[in-house]
Amino acid sequence: MRRSCFLTKGLGLAILAALAVVLVQGSALADPLKSLPAYNGKPAKYVFFFIGDGMANPQRASAEVYLQAVQKPGEVGMTKLAMSRFPAQGMTSTYSLNAVITDSAASGTALACGYKTKSGVISMDPAGKVKYKTIAALAKERGMKVGIISSVDIDHATPATFYANEPTRKNYYNIPKQMCESDFDYFAGGGIKRPEGKKHDQPNLYDLAREKGFATVFVREQFEDLKPGRRVMAFNAYLDNSGALPYEIDRDKSDISLAEFTELGIRLLDNPDGFFMMIEGGKIDWACHANDAGAAIHDTLAFDKAVQAALKFYEKHPSETLIVVTGDHECGGMTIGFAGTKYASFFDKLKNQNLSYQEFEVKLADWKKANKKDPSFEKVMPLVERHFGLRVVSKDELKILKAKAKDGDKEAKISLAMALSEREQAVLETALAQSMLDNKVRSKDEYTYLLYGGYDPFTMALTHTLNNKAGIAWTSFSHTGVPVPTSAIGLGNQLFNGYYDNVDVFKKTAAIMGLGQARTASAQ
Amino acid sequence: MRRSCFLTKGLGLAILAALAVVLVQGSALADPLKSLPAYNGKPAKYVFFFIGDGMANPQRASAEVYLQAVQKPGEVGMTKLAMSRFPAQGMTSTYSLNAVITDSAASGTALACGYKTKSGVISMDPAGKVKYKTIAALAKERGMKVGIISSVDIDHATPATFYANEPTRKNYYNIPKQMCESDFDYFAGGGIKRPEGKKHDQPNLYDLAREKGFATVFVREQFEDLKPGRRVMAFNAYLDNSGALPYEIDRDKSDISLAEFTELGIRLLDNPDGFFMMIEGGKIDWACHANDAGAAIHDTLAFDKAVQAALKFYEKHPSETLIVVTGDHECGGMTIGFAGTKYASFFDKLKNQNLSYQEFEVKLADWKKANKKDPSFEKVMPLVERHFGLRVVSKDELKILKAKAKDGDKEAKISLAMALSEREQAVLETALAQSMLDNKVRSKDEYTYLLYGGYDPFTMALTHTLNNKAGIAWTSFSHTGVPVPTSAIGLGNQLFNGYYDNVDVFKKTAAIMGLGQARTASAQ
Repeated sequence: MRRSCFLTKGLGLAILAALAVVLVQGSALADPLKSLPAYNGKPAKYVFFFIGDGMANPQRASAEVYLQAVQKPGEVGMTKLAMSRFPAQGMTSTYSLNAVITDSAASGTALACGYKTKSGVISMDPAGKVKYKTIAALAKERGMKVGIISSVDIDHATPATFYANEPTRKNYYNIPKQMCESDFDYFAGGGIKRPEGKKHDQPNLYDLAREKGFATVFVREQFEDLKPGRRVMAFNAYLDNSGALPYEIDRDKSDISLAEFTELGIRLLDNPDGFFMMIEGGKIDWACHANDAGAAIHDTLAFDKAVQAALKFYEKHPSETLIVVTGDHECGGMTIGFAGTKYASFFDKLKNQNLSYQEFEVKLADWKKANKKDPSFEKVMPLVERHFGLRVVSKDELKILKAKAKDGDKEAKISLAMALSEREQAVLETALAQSMLDNKVRSKDEYTYLLYGGYDPFTMALTHTLNNKAGIAWTSFSHTGVPVPTSAIGLGNQLFNGYYDNVDVFKKTAAIMGLGQARTASAQ
Repeated sequence: MRRSCFLTKGLGLAILAALAVVLVQGSALADPLKSLPAYNGKPAKYVFFFIGDGMANPQRASAEVYLQAVQKPGEVGMTKLAMSRFPAQGMTSTYSLNAVITDSAASGTALACGYKTKSGVISMDPAGKVKYKTIAALAKERGMKVGIISSVDIDHATPATFYANEPTRKNYYNIPKQMCESDFDYFAGGGIKRPEGKKHDQPNLYDLAREKGFATVFVREQFEDLKPGRRVMAFNAYLDNSGALPYEIDRDKSDISLAEFTELGIRLLDNPDGFFMMIEGGKIDWACHANDAGAAIHDTLAFDKAVQAALKFYEKHPSETLIVVTGDHECGGMTIGFAGTKYASFFDKLKNQNLSYQEFEVKLADWKKANKKDPSFEKVMPLVERHFGLRVVSKDELKILKAKAKDGDKEAKISLAMALSEREQAVLETALAQSMLDNKVRSKDEYTYLLYGGYDPFTMALTHTLNNKAGIAWTSFSHTGVPVPTSAIGLGNQLFNGYYDNVDVFKKTAAIMGLGQARTASAQ
């Protein structure tokens, strides 16, 4: 009797403990489909889900100030992006389960599955044990066709959260393998980062994709042969080391744009049962990590062109379409304001930049090889001027330029605006000296990291200098924790007004797609 | 005939030229009341118009992360402010007629009058010739009572745009003179900056206020004697050099809070014809200019408490009240992210700060006097540790602390978290050396400005160091050009969803107050 009583007590405690675990994990594990917001309209048949990676207010607003500077020089203001003209505009918090500043895996999981998870995890619970069903998979179950597009490698964290479940984003072979084995219909943009694995010893995943019935195309000219309904992987022929598309500012005519990939998606996926398409502007984030405003702005504009492609489709199917545009987090601590320029902005100066930090690094590497013996600041300046417009102007020249500028000489005005101050020159000279050192012997202290963030020191000093001259500054080489804007047009768009969390972006979209009802129905 | 024809031609050209002027200035001069958005509801009887000066997403989100860190330590997330829980949440662009980065005069004019103007101008056209009627004056014409409250001097740009018309915000005698001569009912918070003018040779404006029928009160104890309906100026007894309230983080029990001034306003102004009350959180901006996150967050929380006071009133009159909360611009280029802390945030470290940069400067000045002969870094550190928690820890101590912290010693953990790195110590030592110099001989070059922005170098280095350790960073000592959030609750709040310009905040509020109809009616 006593013993049994003791046992009962033990059992009771065990049950209590188990209950406590459930309670503690409860908020993380509660099925988000069971708490969808009310939506009584017709379920959306066509859903475009846009994610500007690293895109928050500063990125969008910078692109708008830049557009105005280019299109209406002299007229202060902001030329609104297509996404900024959507009727619904909300704000979204982005923190992950374990950090105020999220990574793209956790924020992607929140957007794709409606669950908060730990940074680094792809659509699974924080322990990496429970697989979360993605909104794309739910759409597929519903009979919709599904497309996933990204300007970075298609197996990068954000797109991965829509088709894969992995305990870590670093599983760079398993993730695209899940893509090849998925029943989705269209993957496009940047390609597979390591198609044969880290050690190049695994079966080639492009072969696997073809085995599984995907057509693989790499040039625009092949688009025409693709029939609607065909399962397709369409990646750009030229991809960078990571498998990503080139930066928009570097894009060659032969490179396929994010908008073109979106248009192809529409043509392939349009069918009587509708489609769900996720389109990521992933290189906005990468440009912001590198504190390159020029590259970030051009990629934001390219992303907005993809939004415009969706808008064109929406205009033909306004009563059946939903377009959502969100960001997964801010990146770089970008702002429209720099201490040195105080209240002034000179975004037109960014027009002098004609390549990304990444392409400049390539050119700089060539220059270094050719100038190993005497890598002087004077000698590198022609390269700098050619690609960033920045120039060294002597005191005597300065006087002449000022006189000419006063008389309205346009070229003189540009030279004055782009002339480096003594401080700026000193900063660049120090950075060049660091840049000339082999990466192994470069200074690795805290101060050096704050200046260059692990990027090529000279290139970083150049983008910082040009950005600051334009009136843009950065605080970090990582993401930040400020909220991001979310915009929507079409069916149920009103739900996207307000200030809400990233898991709510999933819930609102799912509600408008009628997914909650489907789930309830199938559970009965 | 020829001559007359010539004359006619001349006249024609003159008319054309005049027309061109009208067209060019057209957008600036068009009466905003003639383009109000549609609003078919009952006009709002009670209107609270809150402006967080320098308050954008980073300021609001920082306060929310801080609240969470204080109230729910260890649980990642954001505890939402009252304003963030309002049903309508929009984004507002803030540029002025001549600058992407506005000042408070131009943005105040846009919010108060619905017109874009040049930075620096108080509710007039850019030439300083045409006076714009403010929403407060329109409310007064409607028979509503009007109150204007600010935590900075009541004649500062933002509050001034609601009751004065001046070609420049610098007219620091004319502006409060217009306040005294106005028919408004309640002015409160910070006082008059220079009641007897710059040279102390003008009639005292407090006397003028009393002559004009205002009761003037300076301590909380006198509040009870004030009868509803009485015209009142209620300023805090203690005001700083500029006439502003103390920072919330420095507030003494005897100092009256922004929330208390709001509550007094409600008691005095509540009447059958309703009221319009503008409440400015002005010191958020000043703290951000000085890159002092601790002070900024506490003033944002104090501002939100004033919002809560209005909410209490709203809950009693939900069908007659509108509360709008906006910002006039961002300030400081604040972000939740610093290169050195990468993806981590440590907002709990801000709890170690117990005064504002301003109060610290006072204490530092005393210390300087006492330590003129040997102002060593070691000697100033006790003062620093007392007020910011930052401490110097030797390598040997570090080892001991790490061991203790590993065993769960709380004090050791704090010491470790607040220990200065070698780089941070070097930065502070340099700043102390600069600080010890007379302002006249301090370095004035570009580089020094970027570091200290004209503030006391040591104090600035301290707030920067503490903020950075918490994971907060800044890019400017001025405003920035990113959009600000606007929140609303009550009558017609839905109008405040979306992404719109600051002149639209005026228009939406005016529409919900029924002011457009009044104007049309009186014009007939």
